Amino acid sequence: MGKAYQRPPPPIVLRLGPLAFELFDILFLLWQAVMVVLYCTKVTYSQDVTSLADERGVANEYITYTGIAFMMYIGFGYLMTFLRRNGFAAVGMTFMVSAVVMEWGILVQTFLEHMLEAAHGEVEPYLHLNLRSLILGMFMVAPVLISFGAIIGKVSSYELMFVAFFEVIFVGINNYIANGRGTLLEAVDMGGSVFIHLFGAYFGLAVSYVLCHNREKAKAYARHSKNGSSYNSDLFSLLGTIALFIYWPSFNSALAKYNVDSGFSQSRVIINTSLAQSAGAFTTFIFSKLLRRAKHGSARGLYDLVDIQNATLAGAVSIGCASDLVVGPGGAMAVGITGALISTAGFVFLQPFLVNRLGLHDTCGIHNLHGLPGLFGGIVGIIAVAASRNDVYGTPGEIFYPHGANQPVYQLASVAITLAFAIISGAFTGLLVLAVRKHLNPIPDEYLFEDIAEFETPEEEEDSQNSGKEKHVESLLVERPSKEIV
Amino acid sequence: MGKAYQRPPPPIVLRLGPLAFELFDILFLLWQAVMVVLYCTKVTYSQDVTSLADERGVANEYITYTGIAFMMYIGFGYLMTFLRRNGFAAVGMTFMVSAVVMEWGILVQTFLEHMLEAAHGEVEPYLHLNLRSLILGMFMVAPVLISFGAIIGKVSSYELMFVAFFEVIFVGINNYIANGRGTLLEAVDMGGSVFIHLFGAYFGLAVSYVLCHNREKAKAYARHSKNGSSYNSDLFSLLGTIALFIYWPSFNSALAKYNVDSGFSQSRVIINTSLAQSAGAFTTFIFSKLLRRAKHGSARGLYDLVDIQNATLAGAVSIGCASDLVVGPGGAMAVGITGALISTAGFVFLQPFLVNRLGLHDTCGIHNLHGLPGLFGGIVGIIAVAASRNDVYGTPGEIFYPHGANQPVYQLASVAITLAFAIISGAFTGLLVLAVRKHLNPIPDEYLFEDIAEFETPEEEEDSQNSGKEKHVESLLVERPSKEIV
Amino acid sequence: MGKAYQRPPPPIVLRLGPLAFELFDILFLLWQAVMVVLYCTKVTYSQDVTSLADERGVANEYITYTGIAFMMYIGFGYLMTFLRRNGFAAVGMTFMVSAVVMEWGILVQTFLEHMLEAAHGEVEPYLHLNLRSLILGMFMVAPVLISFGAIIGKVSSYELMFVAFFEVIFVGINNYIANGRGTLLEAVDMGGSVFIHLFGAYFGLAVSYVLCHNREKAKAYARHSKNGSSYNSDLFSLLGTIALFIYWPSFNSALAKYNVDSGFSQSRVIINTSLAQSAGAFTTFIFSKLLRRAKHGSARGLYDLVDIQNATLAGAVSIGCASDLVVGPGGAMAVGITGALISTAGFVFLQPFLVNRLGLHDTCGIHNLHGLPGLFGGIVGIIAVAASRNDVYGTPGEIFYPHGANQPVYQLASVAITLAFAIISGAFTGLLVLAVRKHLNPIPDEYLFEDIAEFETPEEEEDSQNSGKEKHVESLLVERPSKEIV
Repeated sequence: MGKAYQRPPPPIVLRLGPLAFELFDILFLLWQAVMVVLYCTKVTYSQDVTSLADERGVANEYITYTGIAFMMYIGFGYLMTFLRRNGFAAVGMTFMVSAVVMEWGILVQTFLEHMLEAAHGEVEPYLHLNLRSLILGMFMVAPVLISFGAIIGKVSSYELMFVAFFEVIFVGINNYIANGRGTLLEAVDMGGSVFIHLFGAYFGLAVSYVLCHNREKAKAYARHSKNGSSYNSDLFSLLGTIALFIYWPSFNSALAKYNVDSGFSQSRVIINTSLAQSAGAFTTFIFSKLLRRAKHGSARGLYDLVDIQNATLAGAVSIGCASDLVVGPGGAMAVGITGALISTAGFVFLQPFLVNRLGLHDTCGIHNLHGLPGLFGGIVGIIAVAASRNDVYGTPGEIFYPHGANQPVYQLASVAITLAFAIISGAFTGLLVLAVRKHLNPIPDEYLFEDIAEFETPEEEEDSQNSGKEKHVESLLVERPSKEIV
Repeated sequence: MGKAYQRPPPPIVLRLGPLAFELFDILFLLWQAVMVVLYCTKVTYSQDVTSLADERGVANEYITYTGIAFMMYIGFGYLMTFLRRNGFAAVGMTFMVSAVVMEWGILVQTFLEHMLEAAHGEVEPYLHLNLRSLILGMFMVAPVLISFGAIIGKVSSYELMFVAFFEVIFVGINNYIANGRGTLLEAVDMGGSVFIHLFGAYFGLAVSYVLCHNREKAKAYARHSKNGSSYNSDLFSLLGTIALFIYWPSFNSALAKYNVDSGFSQSRVIINTSLAQSAGAFTTFIFSKLLRRAKHGSARGLYDLVDIQNATLAGAVSIGCASDLVVGPGGAMAVGITGALISTAGFVFLQPFLVNRLGLHDTCGIHNLHGLPGLFGGIVGIIAVAASRNDVYGTPGEIFYPHGANQPVYQLASVAITLAFAIISGAFTGLLVLAVRKHLNPIPDEYLFEDIAEFETPEEEEDSQNSGKEKHVESLLVERPSKEIV
Repeated sequence: MGKAYQRPPPPIVLRLGPLAFELFDILFLLWQAVMVVLYCTKVTYSQDVTSLADERGVANEYITYTGIAFMMYIGFGYLMTFLRRNGFAAVGMTFMVSAVVMEWGILVQTFLEHMLEAAHGEVEPYLHLNLRSLILGMFMVAPVLISFGAIIGKVSSYELMFVAFFEVIFVGINNYIANGRGTLLEAVDMGGSVFIHLFGAYFGLAVSYVLCHNREKAKAYARHSKNGSSYNSDLFSLLGTIALFIYWPSFNSALAKYNVDSGFSQSRVIINTSLAQSAGAFTTFIFSKLLRRAKHGSARGLYDLVDIQNATLAGAVSIGCASDLVVGPGGAMAVGITGALISTAGFVFLQPFLVNRLGLHDTCGIHNLHGLPGLFGGIVGIIAVAASRNDVYGTPGEIFYPHGANQPVYQLASVAITLAFAIISGAFTGLLVLAVRKHLNPIPDEYLFEDIAEFETPEEEEDSQNSGKEKHVESLLVERPSKEIV
């Protein structure tokens, strides 16, 4: 039945019979209602062949979609359960925000793509949905969940929803400016190293920084007694890691099928991603031991779960941008290993520095898993684009890339603009949160890094083994009331 | 090594050397043996093109099949681990019953489809298996696992197997009467809102009611000290929820590929289901807070895990029946939200009422997740069928539906008949259980809602952190005997 | 921050600034570096149509690949978490070794296939990668993880990597001799009963035996206080079981698409595997109760988690070799039931015998899950090949099998050679481990069957419920240092 925590009285309450609506109960229901209306009036099913579903069945798109959904809901959700008493919030808030961003992200991204097409003279009265739309929705969920990693344990579910509402719009605008054909920059980024990982990480870090840039407070966060794992919470978290690892090739390759060389291009992305992340994961174990030993100066050579849960995935982030380019299998592996090294070093050396010097607290270390490897991935993309000769794709490079030989410049610009826009829009969003925070059920200081301020948590039995042996059904009537019948 | 629980002596034992067979050990092995014989003599592989596997590979069918298997074994299995000391029974009995129902369900359903074809003049000497058959098998597992949710913690594995044996037959008969072309009613129900969820829920509730319709006993169940969760059991349970959520579009769309417009129809089901359940899941969080606060009359706004684990899925149940009809993306979302509201309200208000007034105890609340949303889904189906005009499918509605403009009447009849047949056949099955219960190793009253009456459970170490540090291999020889070598 | 365990000083240390490399830190990084160079210089993407990816998209191959990856990383990884304080090592070492074997296995297997083709006159300057290559990589991971099951809890991660390096080569050689067209024996084994399960099991048992063949020590292992499960560790382990169960048809059928009758053959494998393992899983529950009762001589009829976690999968192992042959659906079920019975009996009766008489300790009981059912599967393959008449495939048997009517002899030879080669090469590898063991961070006797000698483990909070309620952020600054900021 939860703890005796009493919320402070909410500032605005609208009573409708027994129901007591607070301000954002109403606003979030309104958000949902407006979306229903828009989906009813402005959205319809696609019948065109852009979705290849008709001719070959749905499998080619549905398999990547479910893989990405698995990564979001189970991968990110359970990865973030590493805090020992924050598991309900990790899985629950991931679930809640992913569900609404799925709806919101499809709408924003499809609308912006529609605008982009309209700018090129193609006008349609409706937005059209196909299986690719669901994938686009998931590609909006990803940056939001990445950002969540910086602030989990410190924000309420409503603060997260509020952040997500704006982040989706900003990701959409950034995509509109730079990501893909027809945009201003026409940059390529198959696996989203830049437009998803880099953006999500620096947006989230900016939000976290605005919400707290007090060095003492950030240090207190880092030392907080609840900001740590338990044996079981670490095992649940590893499940998230492994889920992300298994399906990451789906993430990087999901849109490759829309390339000119479709099937073959998608195979190449899958192979590159698998090899990059395998090489990255193996070497992360070795790097973890070496770097932790270097830092602590002891003879102990232990694997740190933080590195194993996170840096093992940096290879897949790093290869993202170039995963469909001809980096070669060995090149993909080299990228994966370098990304893993950068990420592990970030966890070991940089993260404490950011807390202690900048007062920037990053709960899951998203800067090390998504920020730095995303940045590195963007740079790899620039190099891979620059290195591609006229003949490597069987198509002259000038034709293959929207900007021909000048493409690397545009890639560089896309990285710089994304980085700047993420930080600015994240800071802006953080300021908005501060402005309305009292309406968003903020987590009180005494309940940081645990979920009891927002979730009913079970009372633990004192004596799980020995109780209940001598009890009879009749005598149970006098025991504690259970949830269902009170 | 388990507890000191001593079973009462079984009524019938057949000794064969060291083996001691009880009555249902023999009967269940016989059931399995008869199935082997039938599969050997009456079943063969299909070579026809009904399975589209040949021309485009197996992916389109295999992906939905594995998704549904994931939902059954991990989704239902782990969802039901929420009881703190009943996890082995939740996963283990789900595993056991799904495995045997897979075999039994294929046989029953394929046989009845065969009979249906024979009634239309097509006669074949063998039942033919293809990948669709495996999906049909899973569609028999689903209602059994739904029913299991009402009685878990109160029935033994053998009681569950016994129930499953009959439930599969009754589901098959209900399908034979009403579900699909060639049946008496020719009702449409793409995602099984009616024929799977509604049936499974009310069948299970009827079994539960027959086994216990004593109000005091039902209240005692609800207050039972073991009928509650722990932090870890809730996290395991959420894993089941999320697994069901991710793969539910596979469930609803699995048979859509056999529609006339195949690939496109399946895409539509996937999109509708994804949107309906996303909208339902997001709003469930808000509803949970609002309704629980309304009920408890306090200022606390907490998410209840019971709602998060269950009602979040009601959107997918509700859209099932109409998921291939042209409800539109916004319509699907509205259905999902309404289903989630009904389900959450069921958990908050109706379930205690059923216990206290009817003496109907429903361990997992299947009435709220499958019963009410299934009924609502059936009604949505009637409306969607009635609302479809001649031209919305590109095909006149009279041709599209078996009964043309009269189809809504047949849909309504299918809902009413399924509801009545589920309750009657469930009550009948419950009476059969009562008749032979002493042979089915029933759970004694003092071991309700935990698994130690049926599963070896590990002794917990008193001191998991500090023990074992000073021990040496030599000294370990005198410690407690382990499983493997005794 | 882990325990106070102090490693003995490593024999060889190379210092590079703050980094202290031990011998195998360098050698394993070198292994990885050499693989990068080989992938850069000798490996390229395949553009041929052997991969069917181009024409029908990637789904048909990618779905089996991700299914097998799920089996390896989550299936095996979590299955082995059953030890109560060894979960990090189970998941972590599975992750680490699978990642490197993926890279190494593709290289070795593709190189050997290349040699085989070269022996038949087809010479190419490069190894070519497609999605099938990733599947081949996973088929190298499987025997390594099987072998790991015999020695988990007793070997360090570096010992496991060392074993894996050699095992992959030996599996490759065994495949080169006997597995498939163009080899010396040209034996068929669709699901790898012989070349994966039998090999992996006896190789691992040989390694285990060489590392410890002292009966008293083996008994001490079996009785070790840490060599047991906890409630949560068993639930995590069941997750692995179920994951393996769900995706096993992917494993058995992954290469069936390269058969002459492709799609149809793959469907047949999926159907046979699903039926065999369902029948096996159901009966395992009954066998577990019967055989455990027979052994303990008591009236208790309890399911043993060891059987439920393992023997339930023996049906899938047993049907592997014959899964594409015309055993018939009923035949597949009979094979699955027999395999389950053999496996359960192995756990109940044989495993204690091996410990007590031979001093052979097998942590997970791989002999019972992979060894005996693999051997049985090989025998089923011989019989199925012998029983196939000229007409059952629509193609005369003489044409279908490389050796025509003599094929059963070659099948038998492949089983015998694999068994012998696995034992010899496993023993050889075990001797190599012994030779360099002091450089491989062996687990000290006082830390057997737990992971704290290699992994940072969290300190458990004494009082997870009641602490932290009255704490404020300010006061937290004086608490224990957390990982991130020290």
